[in-house]
Order: sequence, then structure tokens, then C-alpha cells
Amino acid sequence: MAVFTRVTEADITAWLSHYSLGTLLELQGIASGIENTNYFVTTSNGRFVLTLFEKLTAHELPFYLDLMAHLARHGIPCPCPVADKDDRFLGTLNGKPACIVSRLPGKSVTQPSVSNCAAVGAMLGQMHSAGQGFAGRMDNPRGAAWRSSAVQHVRGFLTAEDAALLDAEVAHHASHALSDMPRGVVHADLFRDNVLMDGERVGGLIDFYFACNDVLLYDVAITVNDWCMTASGDLDAERTRAFLHAYHGTRPFTAQEAAAWPTALRVAALRFWISRLFDLHLPRAGEIVNAHNPDQFKRILQRHIATGTDTPWL
Amino acid sequence: MAVFTRVTEADITAWLSHYSLGTLLELQGIASGIENTNYFVTTSNGRFVLTLFEKLTAHELPFYLDLMAHLARHGIPCPCPVADKDDRFLGTLNGKPACIVSRLPGKSVTQPSVSNCAAVGAMLGQMHSAGQGFAGRMDNPRGAAWRSSAVQHVRGFLTAEDAALLDAEVAHHASHALSDMPRGVVHADLFRDNVLMDGERVGGLIDFYFACNDVLLYDVAITVNDWCMTASGDLDAERTRAFLHAYHGTRPFTAQEAAAWPTALRVAALRFWISRLFDLHLPRAGEIVNAHNPDQFKRILQRHIATGTDTPWL
Repeated sequence: MAVFTRVTEADITAWLSHYSLGTLLELQGIASGIENTNYFVTTSNGRFVLTLFEKLTAHELPFYLDLMAHLARHGIPCPCPVADKDDRFLGTLNGKPACIVSRLPGKSVTQPSVSNCAAVGAMLGQMHSAGQGFAGRMDNPRGAAWRSSAVQHVRGFLTAEDAALLDAEVAHHASHALSDMPRGVVHADLFRDNVLMDGERVGGLIDFYFACNDVLLYDVAITVNDWCMTASGDLDAERTRAFLHAYHGTRPFTAQEAAAWPTALRVAALRFWISRLFDLHLPRAGEIVNAHNPDQFKRILQRHIATGTDTPWL
Repeated sequence: MAVFTRVTEADITAWLSHYSLGTLLELQGIASGIENTNYFVTTSNGRFVLTLFEKLTAHELPFYLDLMAHLARHGIPCPCPVADKDDRFLGTLNGKPACIVSRLPGKSVTQPSVSNCAAVGAMLGQMHSAGQGFAGRMDNPRGAAWRSSAVQHVRGFLTAEDAALLDAEVAHHASHALSDMPRGVVHADLFRDNVLMDGERVGGLIDFYFACNDVLLYDVAITVNDWCMTASGDLDAERTRAFLHAYHGTRPFTAQEAAAWPTALRVAALRFWISRLFDLHLPRAGEIVNAHNPDQFKRILQRHIATGTDTPWL
């Protein structure tokens, strides 16, 4: 249950007095999510989502809130922060940094269709395109330096075989870094649960709190590794083709990106294998244990390594 | 039919390439409106409205577009302009200044209920509140100077009785100007056809192209003169009470505003009587004749004068 900090109707009513959002009609805690406290808030002005940040600080948050406002300004369906009467997106509620954003239509899908993958591919391309004009800067906190450091922390918990695979893969990407290709703002976590499908249409991209500046192809690989994946750890050919074709139609891949695609898939899988190992073996104090099994991304990584340079879809 | 400038699917597809709005799904002309060309545009990103400005110029438009963006940023349900890849709201399509804005849910009502009037009153208060932080400035183009000038133009078309009433009323307001009371951004044309009701909720305030800086009470009077009016030209007591009570709950009236309420109702009625006389007798070349009958607002004005200083609702 993602309500770490309780908010009462009296709390939110008092808080809303700093906004031009009308009167509270309904307040409802949101069960999903493991990083923040979220509530659905319906007022006479419409439907919104209240977020209390449990880890991110008021110093870090402007990048994410300004990014969402920028993307929404360009017509990307993402949560748009609402400004208070002092024109600020970020406030404080019950001792936590807090904001209220527009609530988007749709719900996440667990078994995406080929057309779902095409819709998400096209939308990711639009998001990358719209992000080009964003002035905020945030290095990827899950980049190469983090990978090296995190592996040191988790290696002691692993079998010799897994530790060797991890070391080899981290070394591989240290010498095969994605470079000389288009960069920009990436979502970096656009898994199925962070996309609301409104019928066949993408109703919303949500949860931008891993967004950062990085290679765009890396974001494509993270997203494809989730949306187009089979239980065996192999990409589904039809969904992958549909995703990449739609993305390519929005922002055409360069020749360098096509050549780097196998590397991008591997480093994207590696990033989540490491973080899931970390969350499993070194949970932060008080943290709700993330049920995600690291082995899923180990298997995906192994299949990408086995597939090698075979890139029929790019 | 409010499609003065035709836009084809090829036109809009080419135009959309300057935006991050995805691909065109549907283009549909909008029949209502007499000032601009409007189309519903559905893309893979969502539902939008395209407007080609037939009279307003690229010099005048930033005030209105920036105002809508400001109000939307503060959570007011109004059309939010979408920025193109160069971060501009205003473009050019088929030779006309053009913009694309978010499409809001709901539809206008012709027979508003008491609760509709309460919802609109509260929302107008929220809009006035949210507008306080807006930096743009626009004098009311339908203010005292315009009234005096417009009356000179239309007097020759009127009966002696109507001309005398007009002259007397213009003179009355010249010596009873609304002053020393809260000012800000006013919509100035929030008639029933400019509010989309989404069930019991205000889904959207639209058509901000008469918005300007003026006395807030004047905006309340314009809105009440339409939403709370009966066929006889008298205000409906229950709807008026509900409207004003809800507005007062959002932005409390001052004692000066309460005292000036009869004057505000009169000057608001006068403004539309004059403009309807003008549109009837002096239509601009090529203009579609506005079917609104000036006599409606003459009657409203006469009833307000007869009611005098009786202000049971403020």
C-alpha cells in the first residue's frame, strides 16, 4: 500500500486553500507505487493526483516537475503539475514535499498487444522529440558509475557464476559505452505499469521520477525490454517490430543507433538486474520489499547476449 | 458555420509535423462561433481544438494564449495552448494566425439549473483568483470609451425613446464608474455557450478572446445576466442566489462590491445592448449576421433600472 503518510480530508482541504482548484469532492489512497504516497483527489475543478514525496527532496524535485510541465505544454499526455496561488508546483503537506498533478485517463495493461506496443513506441518517440527543448539537466543516477558501485555491494550475495556474469557485463559496457548518438530527456522506467492505455490510445505516461538526460536509444531499450518481452526472456518479434517501427516513424533511428541496438538492450537489462539484486539483498530501512525477482532480468540479459548482433528490427 | 478558412487533412498533417502531438486520427469542423475558424482535431496524443484567427492578429493573440496557459497551469479547466517544437503557441496555417489547444469535456446548457449556476459561480471565483498572478495586461476594449463612441454610431438607427435611454444610461455610468474595488483578469463573455458542463461539474470555460483586465464584479454581472436570467428580463432569485453564494464562497465580495452590484448589473447589460445594436445596424463587411436580438438586453437593462438598489443576494 503506497500510503506511507496519511492525509485526511481536513489536511487536503486546508492544503487546497493555497490553490485555485475548488472544493474537495473525493480523496482516495492509491495502492500501487513503492516510492511515494499517492492519493486520487477529485475537486470541483476535475480529477487530480496528490503525491507526497517520501525520498526525493525539495532540492531534487524541480527537475521532474518542470519536465512534466514542459512535456504537457507540448501536448504529451503526462501528469501536469498544478501551480499554487504563489505560482509554485511544490508545496509541503504533513511534513513531506508534495505536489498535485492532473490525473490522466486509462489503465496499465499487463499483456500488451502488438498495437499497444506500436502506440507506446510512437509516444516514446514523441516524448523524446518534445523533450529536446527542455532546459533542465539531470545526470542518470543509474549510469555507469552506479553500475560499478552497486555490483561491489551485491557481489557478496551472489553465486560465483552470477558474480562472474555481472562483472563481465559491467566491463563490457565500460568499453562499449553508448556514445555519439542522440541524447535528451529519457523516462528511464517506462514499464507497463507506467503507461495508462485509454483503449488503443496512450492516455498517459506516468512516474517520471527516474527521468534524466541520457542516450535516447537506452530509453527505447528499457521500454522494449518490458513491453515486447516473452516469459522466456526473448523479445517477441512482432511486438518488437511494431514498437520500433512506430518509434522510427516519429524519430528516425540513426545508423549508429541501429548498430548499437544489441548493446542498448544488454545495458538496459543489466541496469534492472543490478537494481533488483540491490533491492533484494540490501533493502533500505523501512522499505516495502519490492517483489520483483532479479532473475527475470538476468534471463533477459543472457538471452540478449546469446542473440548477439542479430538486429532484425532496426 | 464557423469554418471561414478551410483546412484539409493534408494541411493539418503538415502543420502537426511542427508539434509533438502524434498522428492525425480525425479532423472535424465546428459549426458554432462567429469570430474564428475552429476544428476538432484528434491525434494519437488526444483531443484538441484547432483555431484559425480570422480577426485577431498575431500581435494581439499572446495575451489570450498566455492567459489560458496561466489559468490551466493553476488548474482552471480552460483550453490550454500546445507549444510547437520551437516552444511557440502561435503558428500560421493557411495564411491565418493559428493555435491548437486542449479539448475539454462537456457541453453547454441552455436551461441552467440552480446547481449549474452554483458551479459556474464557484468556477468564476476560482478563475478570478487564479488570474491574480497573471502578468499580461489588456484594457477592456468594450469599456467606457467604447460605449460612448459606439452609441454615437448606432443612435441614428434608433427610436427617440431608445436613443434617450442609451444616452441617459451611458451618462449614468460615466458618473457612477465601478471603481475602488477588486480588479483582475475577467473573461467578459462567460455566457452559457462559453461554459462546457460535464454533468454537474464545469468541464471547461472556453472562448477567452474578450478577456481583459477590469473590475471583477463586472465579470460577475455579465455572467449572472446570462446564467440567472428569465425570459422577462428579471433575474431568477434562486439561481442568482446560488451563483452569488458560490462565488462569494470562493472570493468573498467586499462591502463596496455589494453596494455597487446594481450598477454592475446595469453596465453589464448596457455593454451587450450596445454591441448587439452595433452588430445589427453596422455589421462588418463579410460578417455573418449575429442573430442575437438587441431588445433582449434592452429589456434586461430596463428591468435592472426598475429594480433599482434592491440587492437581496449580495
